[in-house]
Amino acid sequence: MAALLMAIYFRGLTDREGRDFLSAMIDSGVRLDLASIPGIKVDKHSTGGVGDKTSLIVAPIVAAAGVPVPMISGRALGHTGGTLDKLESIPGFRVHLTHQEFIAVLAKTGCAFGAQTDEIVPADRKLYALRDVTSTVAIPPLIAASILSKKIAEGTNALVMDVKIGSGGFLKDEQTARGLATMLVSWSAHENVKTIVYGTDMERPLGRTAGNAPEVRECLDILRTGTGDARLLELSRVLAATMLMLGEKAATMEAARRQFDDILASGAGYRKMCDICVAQGAALDVVENFATCVRAKHSAPILARASGFIRQINPREIGLALVELGAGREKSSDSVDHTAGITLAKDSGDYVQQDEVLADIHWSGRAEASAAIARFHSAFTIGDEAPLDTPLIRFRCDQNGFHPAPNPY
Amino acid sequence: MAALLMAIYFRGLTDREGRDFLSAMIDSGVRLDLASIPGIKVDKHSTGGVGDKTSLIVAPIVAAAGVPVPMISGRALGHTGGTLDKLESIPGFRVHLTHQEFIAVLAKTGCAFGAQTDEIVPADRKLYALRDVTSTVAIPPLIAASILSKKIAEGTNALVMDVKIGSGGFLKDEQTARGLATMLVSWSAHENVKTIVYGTDMERPLGRTAGNAPEVRECLDILRTGTGDARLLELSRVLAATMLMLGEKAATMEAARRQFDDILASGAGYRKMCDICVAQGAALDVVENFATCVRAKHSAPILARASGFIRQINPREIGLALVELGAGREKSSDSVDHTAGITLAKDSGDYVQQDEVLADIHWSGRAEASAAIARFHSAFTIGDEAPLDTPLIRFRCDQNGFHPAPNPY
Repeated sequence: MAALLMAIYFRGLTDREGRDFLSAMIDSGVRLDLASIPGIKVDKHSTGGVGDKTSLIVAPIVAAAGVPVPMISGRALGHTGGTLDKLESIPGFRVHLTHQEFIAVLAKTGCAFGAQTDEIVPADRKLYALRDVTSTVAIPPLIAASILSKKIAEGTNALVMDVKIGSGGFLKDEQTARGLATMLVSWSAHENVKTIVYGTDMERPLGRTAGNAPEVRECLDILRTGTGDARLLELSRVLAATMLMLGEKAATMEAARRQFDDILASGAGYRKMCDICVAQGAALDVVENFATCVRAKHSAPILARASGFIRQINPREIGLALVELGAGREKSSDSVDHTAGITLAKDSGDYVQQDEVLADIHWSGRAEASAAIARFHSAFTIGDEAPLDTPLIRFRCDQNGFHPAPNPY
Repeated sequence: MAALLMAIYFRGLTDREGRDFLSAMIDSGVRLDLASIPGIKVDKHSTGGVGDKTSLIVAPIVAAAGVPVPMISGRALGHTGGTLDKLESIPGFRVHLTHQEFIAVLAKTGCAFGAQTDEIVPADRKLYALRDVTSTVAIPPLIAASILSKKIAEGTNALVMDVKIGSGGFLKDEQTARGLATMLVSWSAHENVKTIVYGTDMERPLGRTAGNAPEVRECLDILRTGTGDARLLELSRVLAATMLMLGEKAATMEAARRQFDDILASGAGYRKMCDICVAQGAALDVVENFATCVRAKHSAPILARASGFIRQINPREIGLALVELGAGREKSSDSVDHTAGITLAKDSGDYVQQDEVLADIHWSGRAEASAAIARFHSAFTIGDEAPLDTPLIRFRCDQNGFHPAPNPY
């Protein structure tokens, strides 16, 4: 298998080889049978980034609209976060569901967040261990096969993929992301799963927080109040609207976007998220008082070292500083400080005075955290000129090919 | 290691990487210390072919001239033969010597034929098992590292390499062979072993026989009578003369060639071969009466199906037919019929009448051998025109680079 990975590294896979490889991976384990749940099941997945928390906003809103969302997610690794770790920062929340429990939660609430079980694509775990030691983790055909095999085995009928482009993700350039998008769309179609891929910016953290509990808090606040970080909300809206289209709950993207806004404004997404948390083991009052229940022991401000425009907030540096602070994992066996994270007070492009607070960091491990704090500092670049605004969405890819930006909105 | 093999397959090794890889392989085991044996130790090795038996002529003649020849050899695999299997067709001959026994035989007779021990380059055995399953056997840098690591660990000071080019060997074209030659010369120089490489023809079997006992018989006949197949004798002469030069027993290739001829004509090479056989466990009368002692149970002629010139005797087909007859191995655990082989009555370029005997085949397994016989038949191509003569020696490569043909002779 190590030799196969290297051959794929150097030569890639043809479309036919990719489809056969995917099919063999799926067949290494069982497929969940979601036939008992009516409707078109639609999942959403991201290749992983820093502050990339849209699943926690999108899934409850889409489920509230009546589209079943079966979501098997992963853990934080390296500088990127993972949905399972974020959810586990909610006391009582169980992500290790049996297949029966997963289906029961999905049937009851319209959404379930689960971890990959031993029966789902066992080949993926073995391959992943080998990818790790052969430096073939960030290879598009291997990423595509890994993601799709799990998504197809979990029984989804359609998939919205968010492929992160930039230093905060695993794919550094748009061309590589486009190659991955093509594979995701083509290979999944062969398995009768309709996939739509967005290539989105990961040159800055997404939203105002990064870290497990801080991100859950940000999402719960957005779901409860209907407002929040504009880029985070816009990306959530586009992904959710696409899921609503795939789930045939809206005829146009315009209508689907309005549906997202209505559900968000009504608080139905917040109530759905509470229902899911309770169905997966959390107490309702803990979810409703999350910020009070889950608090870090220590905090420290990151102060601007000079006056000027924030030219960059480097997501990779933020992610690596979070790992150093205990919020993430260097290797998959590491344990995680769920309270650790960063809350940005300023955004890229803001003008700041020297010594103004750029961000607050929080953690619960040992009080001394000067190395991590220095690394957070180094993530901020302050200069005399405002940075150029980077577009949030770089492309959309579906079975009709590439579109320069999602259309219409 | 499988991943490393694939990386080498696709990318090759730089000179520095190759030298480091070789050095790591050698250091995986022990090095024989031959300091107790005076003189420059010179070995000869071939990449393997069909009927390629020069070691059994060259080693005793060079040893008879006073150059110590420590020779660790391999076994038959696939369509190519192996020196150890040939020697084991001599009843009593032991190739599995301890290091002490190997050194003692070398000290006593000036030559020792041994098998790789567990202590010599253990990495090579592990890598070879992986090369087999990853289809990376015939990759020049891996061939070079495998050969040189064993030769350097056995303690030789110099090496003459015979790189076979053509369908009867592992390297199909001269360009690949030249690449291998460059690595062999450069990497061994870094380990203070002077290597001279010849690229030689393997588009036809070498000599009049192929198979273990038949090849031993052919070599004993040549050593005893001083005459035999012209191409086999000429290649043996070039290789031996080069060894004599490296061993500083001759000042020029001309002088070294005369020395070879003198030793051959005097019978000193034959007596040396008898001494080696006896030192390694064979009885002298068995060696002296080899053809009588080691006889096949069955034989069959291969008759010409038409009149005409023998345009080709395909060595690969001969080799594969030999495996089918029991003379070789499909996998390394197969046992071998030492008596099985072919004795050519005609050579490439000869004119034959229909039903004339092209060759005789011999074997001792079950009497029915029609499939192997059909395969031997298919190795012969008869046509109206005489074939062009292919040059025996294609190039010589030493530390001064490539020479189109060995010079002078």
